[in-house]
Amino acid sequence: MAASSSERTNVAIIGMGTVGAGVAQLLIDHGDRTARHAGKTIWLSKAVVRDMKKPRGIDLPEGVLTDSIDDVLNDPSIDVVIQLMGGLSPARETMLRAMEAGKDIVTANKALLAEHGGELFTRARELGRSIAFEAAVAGGIPIIANVSQCLSANQILSLEGILNGTSNFIVSQMDEKGVGYEETVKVAQDLGYAEADPAMDVDGTDAAQKLAILSHLAFGATVDWRDIPRSGIDGLDPDDLSYAGQLGYRIKLLATARLVDGELELSVGPTLVRKGTPMAEVRDAFNAIRVVGDAVGPVFYHGLGAGQMPTASAVVADVIDMAVGRTPITFQTLEYFSKDRPARAVQRDASKLRGRYYLRFRVANHPGTLAAITGALAEHSISISSVIQHEDSSADSGVIDGSTVPLVIMTHEATEGAASGAVTAIESLDVVEGNVVRMPVRG
Amino acid sequence: MAASSSERTNVAIIGMGTVGAGVAQLLIDHGDRTARHAGKTIWLSKAVVRDMKKPRGIDLPEGVLTDSIDDVLNDPSIDVVIQLMGGLSPARETMLRAMEAGKDIVTANKALLAEHGGELFTRARELGRSIAFEAAVAGGIPIIANVSQCLSANQILSLEGILNGTSNFIVSQMDEKGVGYEETVKVAQDLGYAEADPAMDVDGTDAAQKLAILSHLAFGATVDWRDIPRSGIDGLDPDDLSYAGQLGYRIKLLATARLVDGELELSVGPTLVRKGTPMAEVRDAFNAIRVVGDAVGPVFYHGLGAGQMPTASAVVADVIDMAVGRTPITFQTLEYFSKDRPARAVQRDASKLRGRYYLRFRVANHPGTLAAITGALAEHSISISSVIQHEDSSADSGVIDGSTVPLVIMTHEATEGAASGAVTAIESLDVVEGNVVRMPVRG
Ligand SMILES: NC(=O)c1ccc[n+]([C@@H]2O[C@H](COP(=O)([O-])OP(=O)(O)OC[C@H]3O[C@@H](n4cnc5c(N)ncnc54)[C@H](OP(=O)(O)O)[C@@H]3O)[C@@H](O)[C@H]2O)c1
Ligand SMILES: NC(=O)c1ccc[n+]([C@@H]2O[C@H](COP(=O)([O-])OP(=O)(O)OC[C@H]3O[C@@H](n4cnc5c(N)ncnc54)[C@H](OP(=O)(O)O)[C@@H]3O)[C@@H](O)[C@H]2O)c1
Repeated sequence: MAASSSERTNVAIIGMGTVGAGVAQLLIDHGDRTARHAGKTIWLSKAVVRDMKKPRGIDLPEGVLTDSIDDVLNDPSIDVVIQLMGGLSPARETMLRAMEAGKDIVTANKALLAEHGGELFTRARELGRSIAFEAAVAGGIPIIANVSQCLSANQILSLEGILNGTSNFIVSQMDEKGVGYEETVKVAQDLGYAEADPAMDVDGTDAAQKLAILSHLAFGATVDWRDIPRSGIDGLDPDDLSYAGQLGYRIKLLATARLVDGELELSVGPTLVRKGTPMAEVRDAFNAIRVVGDAVGPVFYHGLGAGQMPTASAVVADVIDMAVGRTPITFQTLEYFSKDRPARAVQRDASKLRGRYYLRFRVANHPGTLAAITGALAEHSISISSVIQHEDSSADSGVIDGSTVPLVIMTHEATEGAASGAVTAIESLDVVEGNVVRMPVRG
Repeated sequence: MAASSSERTNVAIIGMGTVGAGVAQLLIDHGDRTARHAGKTIWLSKAVVRDMKKPRGIDLPEGVLTDSIDDVLNDPSIDVVIQLMGGLSPARETMLRAMEAGKDIVTANKALLAEHGGELFTRARELGRSIAFEAAVAGGIPIIANVSQCLSANQILSLEGILNGTSNFIVSQMDEKGVGYEETVKVAQDLGYAEADPAMDVDGTDAAQKLAILSHLAFGATVDWRDIPRSGIDGLDPDDLSYAGQLGYRIKLLATARLVDGELELSVGPTLVRKGTPMAEVRDAFNAIRVVGDAVGPVFYHGLGAGQMPTASAVVADVIDMAVGRTPITFQTLEYFSKDRPARAVQRDASKLRGRYYLRFRVANHPGTLAAITGALAEHSISISSVIQHEDSSADSGVIDGSTVPLVIMTHEATEGAASGAVTAIESLDVVEGNVVRMPVRG
């Protein structure tokens, strides 16, 4: 029943939504490609749905569509289960049952892996089964294969990326059109780039889940995605995009993993990225990842992070790798999420993160304001690299009135601990109104 | 003797130059990485050089260095030969002998593969051996694995890239510094980016050889690199970089393969690439490749195309894939350069290539000149999208003197046949001095 043993590999899709229908289309319409790369026929035996009546936009051969998962689990001729249900349950139980029935698994479900990866991978090893999951991170960019195979001669030093296409679409649109967050989310929803409830995309959850998976592959760290300090783009103020632009930067929702003194710095959040660098120029719903290896140097990947066919492309490549026998080798060798493999890096305490910061305040428009703020920064040993005092009437100009003005400060390098200490101190100053906006700066 | 059968894979390097020394360093200093990814120890048994006295910048364990290839060929415990001699001979003979002695091969020698790939791959299959060659194209960018495995669900529609780092360094420098070709070559040589004789790099040969290899992998076409229409950057005029800049483009040495009506358009040459696109912003000695697949859409890769450690990174990843058993599967399944596999695409006649063109003329500074030239273009059904008439005294201004002025024309889409017909006609006009500069335009 091993996937690579027979002359033909029979596969079943569970979940014929957006991705499932795309995978079925590639398998049915382009069997020549899969056969050429797998050295044998890859045959779609079953496609499991809940509702047999719902149109799927694809003509399946007679007898393929079923609403019974048991049709797959009880069929010993099916070698690979392509698990394309979303959510955690029953996706988790279905995956376990499929492996227990002797099936190898290909999946695109990052939430499931971020939540139950340890359990699922351990069970797969116990059962002698394999799991492939290229489509779970960055859709069409084959980052899983690149990190776990192509760059295997390297100690990876850092990995940073735009891992959520919805967020990038929204931020790029806000930047280019100068419109607000709420309005742009509506545009993204109308165009199909954001779901009706985009919370997990825009609040950094999705990017943190992907970063947790990549951190395990690239650094051997086992990280709960909830432990990654994260903020989202929800509530991003167009003013900050504009100030960042004046300083020569764009704001991107960046997921970052960096080895520092043998520890792993992890974060997800809106970040100022210098214009003209490839990462800053990533537009629309594209994803991008920059990996730095100690031998290879920087390698940059850019492509579509989601969507029916880009994701299906990754799924079908996994199915081919499974059928031809490469995945079982990789899966058994690398032993992802194995308790027998000591962690090669632990997560660094967030307060030790170092970086430059973008700070925006609303300050009283009267003398001494700038002195009070720069004084508070100096007390926390933070020095300043640029200041934007936007109005003509500077806070130190001597004009005294009750109004407030924006003040933007870009700092030199400081620790996260110092920066948050300074921000707390500054927020308590009389001359400062409301909360300070703070974002890290790259490049 | 199969590479993946034993608990340890023994390897030998033949050729301890730049790349060989880097590979030895990774294997010796970082055995933990290779063991983790290969599931067993990868052991450097021998390193073959011509001159035992020459310093190699690396401490090899006692007994590893040898000047006798027979020490490798006659040692049945050696599984993999890492072939890092340059040139065609004795590299070809050595590779054949190594395979006959039962060794699998990892190589970085693109010239050898471009010239003798068919023979070497066929012989490998006859002998049940495998050849891995990730480092042969684009150094640190794992484009071979990406095209042959990661994007295997796609019909690749086009592939274009900056495949020669030396040329890109020279063109980028000329563009940024505004200096001439000869002077920039000297800078590149001083910095180690160009060899003493950089002919194969700057005349497009190296890029054409790499494109021939990639075309086979991506499109199943068997192309002699000599049949790829090519021109180099040798003799590029800084004026053209400047005019291109005014029109919103940069000039790059671009290698292009595109499926058009089921035929494969191939070319290598200086090309105008629109500023702001990722390809236009590739600087220094970096390489980049943009692949478009019918499912995945565009995927863009950017990294170091040469240099000791980036190339060694690719070589060692191949050694790991060989040792762990992935390469033999891939090699046997894909049957590269096999006569039994019908070509999936044939090269399109160069005169049928379609594109926009940049044309620069030196023209007589008198009335009727522009009319004569635009007339010749119209006769070949080529329409014009922009014109730069640089001097104040336009050729049609009525000022008559014996001097010549530059005239730059950007055309709308035309066939290569029409463009070269028009250029020949224009070069024969009295009002035109010398040869016309012509480059294709992308984006
Ligand atoms: N869409 C993307 O671009 C993308 C990109 C990367 C990864 N992913 C991941 O891929 C997975 C699928 O995404 P999607 O966009 O294709 O989702 P989707 O369009 O919502 O489709 C989910 C499918 O699962 C089916 N399903 C749910 N519960 C089921 C059950 N108990 N039994 C049988 N079928 C069940 C649904 O059946 P019914 O149709 O009958 O309701 C539906 O067809 C998710 O994990 C997602 O995170 C998606
Ligand atoms: N350098 C790069 O960045 C790069 C990138 C991609 C691909 N490549 C390819 O990798 C290969 C090696 O490049 P390289 O830069 O390392 O070249 P290199 O520095 O010139 O080294 C070539 C080595 O081969 C050895 N050699 C030549 N003939 C030999 C023979 N008959 N027996 C034993 N050893 C012999 C030389 O030995 P001696 O030292 O004793 O003379 C030398 O050590 C070439 O095919 C090149 O195209 C290089």
